[in-house]
Parts: sequence; C-alpha cells; structure tokens
Amino acid sequence: MPKVAVIMGSDSDFDVVKKCLIALEKFDIEYDAEVISAHRNPDKIFSYVRSAEENGIELIIGAAGKAAHLPGVMAGLTPLPVIGIPIQTSFQGGLDSLLSIVQMPSGVPVATVAVNGAENAGILAAQMLSIKYPEIREKMKAYKETLDEEVAAKNEKLQAKING
Amino acid sequence: MPKVAVIMGSDSDFDVVKKCLIALEKFDIEYDAEVISAHRNPDKIFSYVRSAEENGIELIIGAAGKAAHLPGVMAGLTPLPVIGIPIQTSFQGGLDSLLSIVQMPSGVPVATVAVNGAENAGILAAQMLSIKYPEIREKMKAYKETLDEEVAAKNEKLQAKING
Amino acid sequence: MPKVAVIMGSDSDFDVVKKCLIALEKFDIEYDAEVISAHRNPDKIFSYVRSAEENGIELIIGAAGKAAHLPGVMAGLTPLPVIGIPIQTSFQGGLDSLLSIVQMPSGVPVATVAVNGAENAGILAAQMLSIKYPEIREKMKAYKETLDEEVAAKNEKLQAKING
Amino acid sequence: MPKVAVIMGSDSDFDVVKKCLIALEKFDIEYDAEVISAHRNPDKIFSYVRSAEENGIELIIGAAGKAAHLPGVMAGLTPLPVIGIPIQTSFQGGLDSLLSIVQMPSGVPVATVAVNGAENAGILAAQMLSIKYPEIREKMKAYKETLDEEVAAKNEKLQAKING
Amino acid sequence: MPKVAVIMGSDSDFDVVKKCLIALEKFDIEYDAEVISAHRNPDKIFSYVRSAEENGIELIIGAAGKAAHLPGVMAGLTPLPVIGIPIQTSFQGGLDSLLSIVQMPSGVPVATVAVNGAENAGILAAQMLSIKYPEIREKMKAYKETLDEEVAAKNEKLQAKING
Amino acid sequence: MPKVAVIMGSDSDFDVVKKCLIALEKFDIEYDAEVISAHRNPDKIFSYVRSAEENGIELIIGAAGKAAHLPGVMAGLTPLPVIGIPIQTSFQGGLDSLLSIVQMPSGVPVATVAVNGAENAGILAAQMLSIKYPEIREKMKAYKETLDEEVAAKNEKLQAKING
Amino acid sequence: MPKVAVIMGSDSDFDVVKKCLIALEKFDIEYDAEVISAHRNPDKIFSYVRSAEENGIELIIGAAGKAAHLPGVMAGLTPLPVIGIPIQTSFQGGLDSLLSIVQMPSGVPVATVAVNGAENAGILAAQMLSIKYPEIREKMKAYKETLDEEVAAKNEKLQAKING
Amino acid sequence: MPKVAVIMGSDSDFDVVKKCLIALEKFDIEYDAEVISAHRNPDKIFSYVRSAEENGIELIIGAAGKAAHLPGVMAGLTPLPVIGIPIQTSFQGGLDSLLSIVQMPSGVPVATVAVNGAENAGILAAQMLSIKYPEIREKMKAYKETLDEEVAAKNEKLQAKING
Repeated sequence: MPKVAVIMGSDSDFDVVKKCLIALEKFDIEYDAEVISAHRNPDKIFSYVRSAEENGIELIIGAAGKAAHLPGVMAGLTPLPVIGIPIQTSFQGGLDSLLSIVQMPSGVPVATVAVNGAENAGILAAQMLSIKYPEIREKMKAYKETLDEEVAAKNEKLQAKING
Repeated sequence: MPKVAVIMGSDSDFDVVKKCLIALEKFDIEYDAEVISAHRNPDKIFSYVRSAEENGIELIIGAAGKAAHLPGVMAGLTPLPVIGIPIQTSFQGGLDSLLSIVQMPSGVPVATVAVNGAENAGILAAQMLSIKYPEIREKMKAYKETLDEEVAAKNEKLQAKING
Repeated sequence: MPKVAVIMGSDSDFDVVKKCLIALEKFDIEYDAEVISAHRNPDKIFSYVRSAEENGIELIIGAAGKAAHLPGVMAGLTPLPVIGIPIQTSFQGGLDSLLSIVQMPSGVPVATVAVNGAENAGILAAQMLSIKYPEIREKMKAYKETLDEEVAAKNEKLQAKING
Repeated sequence: MPKVAVIMGSDSDFDVVKKCLIALEKFDIEYDAEVISAHRNPDKIFSYVRSAEENGIELIIGAAGKAAHLPGVMAGLTPLPVIGIPIQTSFQGGLDSLLSIVQMPSGVPVATVAVNGAENAGILAAQMLSIKYPEIREKMKAYKETLDEEVAAKNEKLQAKING
Repeated sequence: MPKVAVIMGSDSDFDVVKKCLIALEKFDIEYDAEVISAHRNPDKIFSYVRSAEENGIELIIGAAGKAAHLPGVMAGLTPLPVIGIPIQTSFQGGLDSLLSIVQMPSGVPVATVAVNGAENAGILAAQMLSIKYPEIREKMKAYKETLDEEVAAKNEKLQAKING
Repeated sequence: MPKVAVIMGSDSDFDVVKKCLIALEKFDIEYDAEVISAHRNPDKIFSYVRSAEENGIELIIGAAGKAAHLPGVMAGLTPLPVIGIPIQTSFQGGLDSLLSIVQMPSGVPVATVAVNGAENAGILAAQMLSIKYPEIREKMKAYKETLDEEVAAKNEKLQAKING
Repeated sequence: MPKVAVIMGSDSDFDVVKKCLIALEKFDIEYDAEVISAHRNPDKIFSYVRSAEENGIELIIGAAGKAAHLPGVMAGLTPLPVIGIPIQTSFQGGLDSLLSIVQMPSGVPVATVAVNGAENAGILAAQMLSIKYPEIREKMKAYKETLDEEVAAKNEKLQAKING
Repeated sequence: MPKVAVIMGSDSDFDVVKKCLIALEKFDIEYDAEVISAHRNPDKIFSYVRSAEENGIELIIGAAGKAAHLPGVMAGLTPLPVIGIPIQTSFQGGLDSLLSIVQMPSGVPVATVAVNGAENAGILAAQMLSIKYPEIREKMKAYKETLDEEVAAKNEKLQAKING
C-alpha cells in the first residue's frame, strides 16, 4: 500500500487539509498527517523529511499559508516529489501563500495546486502514484467517470428547474 | 525507458521549454515534444491526450501563456498526472498564465511550477517517475548533491572576490 | 426566433447566470441553459459546441470561475461568437476568472464582460443578434431609454431625500 | 458589405490597432478608422457614435489605454455592440486599461478582448457579423482551419529541429 | 456662497457620498447632489456638466465604482476642476474604480482621493475653494486644529485604558 | 500672479516633474521648484510647508516614488490644497507610489493624478487656481480647444495614411 | 529595563497593536504606547520622536494603515531603529499599508513585519534589544522552545483526532 | 567590533547585496558574506545559522528572490534578529520575493526592507547594533546629517538649472 506524508504548517490548516485526506482515502492511499511548522519546528521538519524515504513515504504534501515556506523547505530536503497547497489568507485571497509556494528556484520544484486546493492535492498524489500502481490508475479512471456523471446529474436538475 | 509528453501551446514557447527537455535528458527520460494549441488544434489535442496512456506516455507536461488553458484541458482528458509551466507574459510578469494554470477546479489538478519554470517541470517529472523507477531516484539524489556543490563553488568564488 | 446557448461550468454558477437568462427573456431570445464542465465533461462540451451551429444556436455564452477555461475552450470549437462571464471568486475578487477568460491568444477571441456581469452578457448577446434582427434592435433602443429613466427616477428620490 | 467603426483614443494606439484593420480586411469587412478621444473630443465622439447606426455602421470597436473610457462611453451612446481593446501600458502591463474597459455596469456592456488583442477584436467583429452574413461565417470556418494548419506546420518544423 | 456639484453614478453610492455632503456643510459650501450615470444618462451628463460653470458651479465632485468613467467624462466636458471618488467594489477592494479614475490621459486630470474617500473629497473641495474664499481658509485652519485635538483626546483615553 | 510650490522628493524625479513646470508656464503660473525629501530633510520640509501660505504659495504639488510620503506629509502641515504625483517605479509600474499617495486617511486629502502624471498636475493646479483667477479660466478654455484640435489634426494624418 | 515606544496612527489600530504590547511584556520590555497621527498631529510626532532617544527610548514601533506614513516619517526623525506594522485594510488585504511602509528610500529603512503582524513586531523588538541585553536573549531562546512545544502539542491533538 | 552575517540565496544577488556590504563598512561593522541557498544547501544553512551566535554574529541579513525562503528559514533557526532583502524579479517587480519574506507567521519575524533595499538593510543593521554600540549611534547621527546635506546640495544644483 502506497504511503504519503501530509504536513500542515499549522493546526488551523486542518479544516482545509482534511479534504486532501478524504481524497487519499478514496484511492486507498495510506497517509501520515502531521502538524510541523518549518519555522517553529525546524529540527523536526529536518529529521522528518530526511528520513521520509526510508520510512516508506513515496511523496510528500505540504500545506501552508502567508509566507508559506513549508513545501519548499521540504523539497530542499528530499528527492521525493513534493506537492504544495497554498492556504487562503486575508491578503489578496492567498496570493502570498501561492507565490511563496509556486515561485521555487531552479532545481527544487514544488507541484503547486490552487489556493485551498487540498482535494486536488490528494487527486494529484494519486495520479503520481498511479505511474507505479496500476490499481490506482484504474480507480482514477473510475473517478473521472464519476466527475462526468455528477455534473451531468446536476445539469439534469437544472433542466428540471428551468423547464419546470 | 520512461516517456513523457511535452506539449507547447505555441512554438514561441520553445526557448523556455527547451530547458525542460535538457532536464529530462539529464535523467534519461525519453520525451515527445509537440506544438499543439488547445484552442487552434482542439481535435488534435483531444486525440493526442486521449491516446497518450496507450502510447506509453507516463506523464504530460504542458506549457502555455496568457489564458493558458492547455495544461488544464489536457488534465481533463487523461488520468495521467499533468505538469503545467506558466509562460511569462508582459501582463504582470505572467500572472495571467500562472492563475489560468494553477487555479484548477476540484477533481482536475495541474501540478504547477513557477512562471517560466521549465527546468523545474523536468525535475518534477523525474521526481514523479522516480516513485516507480529506482534508477531515476538515484540520479535525483546525485543531482541534489550537484546543486549543493555548485552553490558551494559559487560561494568560494565570492569569498575570493570579497577577501581578495 | 434567435437562439443562444448559455453554458455554466458548475451548477453553483446558476445564481449569477440566471440574471443572464432574465436579460435574454427581456429581448425574447430563446436559450438553452446547460451545466457542462470543460474539465469534467470534455466529450460533452466537444460534441455540444461542435453541433451548436447546426442545432440553430447563433451565439454561445459561457460562465466559469477560477481557472475559467470553459468560454475559451468553446471558442476553439466553433465559428460562432462566444461571450465569457468571469464568476467572482475569493481570489482577488475574481482576477483569476477574469484573466483566464479575457487573455485569449490571437485567432480565438472571447467577448468578455465584467466579473459576475451575467446581465450584461445577456444584453451583449442581444446587441450582437440585433445586427441581424431589427426587432431586437428596436427593443434595445427602448431598453436604453428605460435605463435612462430608471436613473432619473432614482435621482428624483434622492432629491426628495436631500431637500426634504 | 458590412461596415465597422474602429475608434482609437490616441494616434499612438495605431501600431496595435492596425492588426485589427488587417483582420477585418481578411473577412472583407469595410471599416472607418478614426482617432477620436473620449476626453479631448467629447462633442465629436458624441455626434459620431450617435449617428453611427444611420451611417450604416453595424458595430463599433474602441481601443484605449490607461483610464480607457472610450469603449464604455461609446457603449452608452449607441444600441450597437461595442468591442473594447485595452492598450498595454507601463502600469502592471495594462491592468488599468483592462479594468477600465471590462468592468462596465449593468445595462451597458463592452465586449472586451485581451490587452493589445487588436487582431482578436477584428476576428470577434467578424464572428458577430457572421450571425447575419453567411459569407463571413464561411470565411470564419476557413480561417479556423488555417489556424489549425499553421500550428501543425510549426510543429513539423519543431520536430525537424529536435529530431534533426 | 460657493457652490459645488456632487454627482454619483448610482444611487447605491449615496451611503458613501453623504460623508462628502456633511464635509461640505461643515465649510458652509452649497452643493447640488445628483444621481447621473455617465453610461445610462449620457445626454444629461453632457448638458449638466456643459452648463455647470454658467450655473454658478465652481467645482465638480464625481463618485463612481467599477469602470468608473463618470469623473473622467465630466473632466472632458468642463474647464472646472473635477474631484473623483473611487467607490469600493468587491474586485480587489476597488482597484478597478481607483485605476479608472486616477489614470487619466494628459490634458484631462481628475483630482483623485482614496477609495471610498468621500469625506476627503469634501475637504479637498474646501481647500480648493479656500484659494478664493478666505473664510473657508480660516475654517480649514480651525478644522485642522480639531483633527489634532480629536486624536489627542483619543490618545488620552488610550492612556487611561492602558495605565488603568 | 498666482504662485505654486513644486516639491520633488528626489532630483531623479525632475525628468518627470519638468512637464509639470512647462504646464504651469503655459498658464502663466509662477512656481518655486525644490528638491526636499520628507525623510532626509524633515526639518526643511516642516519649515518650508509651514511657511508656504505666508510666502504667497497658493497650492503645493508634491512628486515622489516608492513609499511616497512627501505629498501626504505636506498635506498634514498646511491648509493649502496639495496635489500628488506618483512617480513610476519598477514595482508593478508604480503601484507603491500611487497607493502611498492616494490612500490618505480622513481629514488630510491629497489630490492624486496618474502615475507620472506631472503634466496633469500642472493642468489641475491651473484648474484649481482658475476658481479665483478668471484669466486662467479663459486660458483653460483655450487649452481644451487646443486639445480637441490636436487630436483632430492627428486624425486627419491617420486618414491620409490609411486612405492613401 | 529597556524601553520601547509603540505609536499608533489611529486608536482603531489598538485591537491589532495590543498583541505587540503583550509580546513586549512577555520579554519584560517597558513601553510607552501612544496614539499619534503623522498627518493630524505633525507637531507632536515631530517633538515626540525627536526627543525619544534622550527620553530613554531604545527603539520605536509604528502601526498604521492605508497610506501608512507614520513609521517612515518617524524613521526620518530619529537614529533609532523603527519597526513598522502595516494594518490590514479593505484594499487588497492591506497592500496599501504594506507598500507605504516597506518601500522606503535609501538611507531611511523601516523594519517591516507582516500585515497585522503586531505580535511579531514585539518579538522583533525583543530580538533587536537582545543584542544588548543578555537576559532578553535568554528569554528569546526559551520562547522559541515554547513555540516548538506548542506546535508539537497541537500535533498530538491532531493525531488523537485522526487516529481516534 | 560588531559582526553581521550577510547570506545570499544565489551569487546572482551579489550585484544588489554589495550595497549592503558598503553600508556596513561605512559604520565599521564587520561582516561575513556567504552564498548559501536555503533549498540547495539545507545542511549548510542549518549548521551556519545554528552556530552563528556562538561564532560572534550579532545579527543576520538574508537576501533572496522569487519564493524567497532564506530569511524566514534562518529566522526559524536562531534567536538573533534577521533582516530580509527581497530581490527584484520579473514577476510584478518582486512581489513574490517581498511577500515570501515579509508575511512571516507569528513568533518568527523577519525585519523586511524594500525590494532591492540592500543599502537600507545595512543601515537598519547599524541602527539595531547602535542600541548596544554608542559609537555606531554617533555615526548614524552623522550619516543622517549627510543625507540631509546631500539632498540640499542636489536642490542647489536644480535651482541653478532652473533659474539659469
């Protein structure tokens, strides 16, 4: 069973991040969710990420807001792919979080999703893991069909509403 | 040998995108680089992406500028992970490209890198593939050591410059 | 009777989009309103838009938020004029939606209205159709007189309020 | 032969606007191109736009930069559809022009294209006129095929370049 | 008695604009407050502003939101000084209103105050009129002393609060 | 003869500010142009502005860039009207200068013109002074006719160019 | 005992600024908190800051919103270090305050913290004073351990929540 | 002699950072300038900053661009005050660098100066150190007089230029 680390910079991010955990569960991906601040727990983030690969972690997801250094700091410490979730803030809707995560220098990328895009971080993790795990690929195909059907169902409701 | 599709929305993006190709070559990742516009070649983008998986493509990289729909449109057409490269524009340094790529709706993520971050798109692709391919993981570790050494070498030069 | 397609990327856009439908009704323009996501229903959007002209649709209106690709994707698939409504988001008041819709590349324009400008999308559709349909032109002239009178009536109320 | 008015707020906009004229010519659309400033020639803009319909103008295109009021002012004076071209400025790449044109109040829309999107303004005009003129619709379909072929040709060149 | 025209683009602006009227009253400046839309009442705005000087108006204040053309349009129609009040919107806190008002082209300035700065528009009007009217100058000096004292009084309250 | 103070925060602003001086000369307005930094010459700015009124200055123009405090600081020190010119910077085209000047708190307005709008600051000064000085009002009317004629002349040239 | 001046531009800033006072108390730093407006109390700000050093103040903290000149004006008047707190506004979440404080010209720096970062202003003051006062350095080290432990405690709670 | 560490994230930042070194020299402050990347040399940045205090460093200056994590990461590792210099980028003039540095979470401040404000970082360091070192305070007072005189000298030149 594939395993993912989901690290939040603050426990206040959990309301957003839990959508990521639900998405991972949908694809039967095991996760280790932790609150570790890049700035307040520098030793812990260092040791956690440095030992992630040998602990069976296959990719890391980081969520952070404002000067959101967590995903980038983790990307500097590991050869694993790192996904970054910019948490919405009251500053231009989270532009600070987005730029702090996405604008990484050459050599150290962070795979950034939308502001508050925690669900998509889980889906993206599943897509990355599906390169290796055929059963996740199959679930992904089924999931995309579900998306298609859900919108179609909503459209039918709208038709009923409009056309009475 | 793993294989990646690198799709540009315009041939004018090639100057940026070639850094992605060089990065892929560094990790011995085969690629198919194509100019296909989501808006001008809709049939082709549809058929290319829909058949990517069966053609042995393991992940897709898309580069586009302005209303940069290409990566997101591809993400809607495939279960494979899609990486998006926002191309710099004269509008706020590429804010249009960045937001058009990163702000994807739930269910259809694009793994976004920095504006003009083509080299990082290649590195990120290698990191994703390294989940499956141990030889790429090893190269990634060596690559990260090289990064460390390159900066150290530049620091030595600076020391010489400052301290004469 | 002229006919317009009004496509929303999500059923949550309906609260905004219904002002467009009301505006179209004001000019006796028939419409087909549908929820079709460019990213979640790619086959459907493809077939719907490709067959729009032969189904008697004379122009298409698309409403979408965030990475709002829907209007641009439709513009790539049809020779008909496409109007885009950027839906307001929590990110800088909808700057993401606006830029994703308006910054289209050469050859594939989208006629963009204001963020949440659904009513104006309906008026603009009527103006476009009035090129062909003289009766819509007459209604447009009457509508503009109404606008003038409505503001004049509000001004009278304000005068009463201020001057007692 | 359909006729379009193309109004620039300043003669310095002509370098951008001429791409619009070339696009109109491609579709055999006659145009009257004028430099009229909404702020410096208020009487002239008033009389020109007010008499446009009776002078056979079927739609109006306005190009302006900075506090780009021209397209909106014209939209207030005519029942004809108005297309707005935001001219690029040194202020955030033309954000001032874009917002001044697109953020029109309810009742008075301007069909806005991308910053410096003059070519697209011409294409959009042709699409609007194609509602009435079948021969323009046919040219539009041929034009879209040309777009498709041009990108395909550029892709072939890229293949040759990459694969030697 | 000096006289000022205060024009709002919409009656919904009155909640903000009334602070301007209160400020004018503080300096015994007569005003004519009107709701006139630049886009919906183009004839009225034209005739009102063109006859303002001969009607004894000495300066004009305009308040508008979004594509806030009203102050600039008025500035094009009169030799009188025009003050612009950008009304706050849900788009980046009124950046659209601010840029549409302040970024006027050479030759046609609008004296712009802060977003929702209606009170300051009234103060600024008084300052402009004080060039001619010495009694307004005296009131302005007294007003500035009041400002100084009000903050000092608030500071005393804070001292009491902190030092108990 | 009316007199205006034109204060620059830095001598590097002179290239922009000289357009203001030329505009003032056009209306036969005397000026005292000085380089005084609000931050580097606090005593001088204090004494200069405090004694401006008794030295016959009727209004003050301030030009500054980045954290452009100069106009606002002067507005706090005088009952005279203060016009602010935001100087363009490399940060978002001068957004820093614009916001630092225009977003003044209640009670202390600065009449803000466009980024680098030095010429307009001169015109606006003339408009303010024309409240008192009828001869400036007459020159302003003539100036506005000139603007109208200049654009008309440019239009004629364009017609010649287009119609050959 | 070290002493710090904490100056607010408005008493409405106190809700934010009190977090700064609490932080200073944590490090046993004495403070003098005052409401003094740079624009409404120019004489007072001048005299207060000019005499700060001889009154035993070792550093100054200034909090202000919108065109937030207070910290920069104080920095021009004293050789002491000045810390600036940008207060959040309804304009882009306080971008106006941030840029007005941070973008100071060469020679006159303001040590800027995050928008509404009052607590951090207090911590930063303690760090600056710890250069001189070893007992503050010791408290700072203890404080940082507390930060580390607090996040660890929150993480434990999250583990309990997730793993039941 | 007081000692400061000046850390750059990239050797390409040196052109900007050298102004900081020159400023430090002006106040006879010793420095250790190093190129250490937070992302590429994570072990080195960890060990360097952790041992800074015991190596006699009294404060740390960090310069970085784009996702500029360096100053914040260092602030997490040390009780010393940290000054951050946002390096200008092609993305909105360095908004990415500025927000990544200034928007730090509670408990871990970075004293941020203007984009490319390297000289001011040196001045601010001197101001911080002047709390402890009276001789730096004296130099700071002299420096501020120099600033005042330099602008006065520039003003005299301007007077000569204008008045011939």
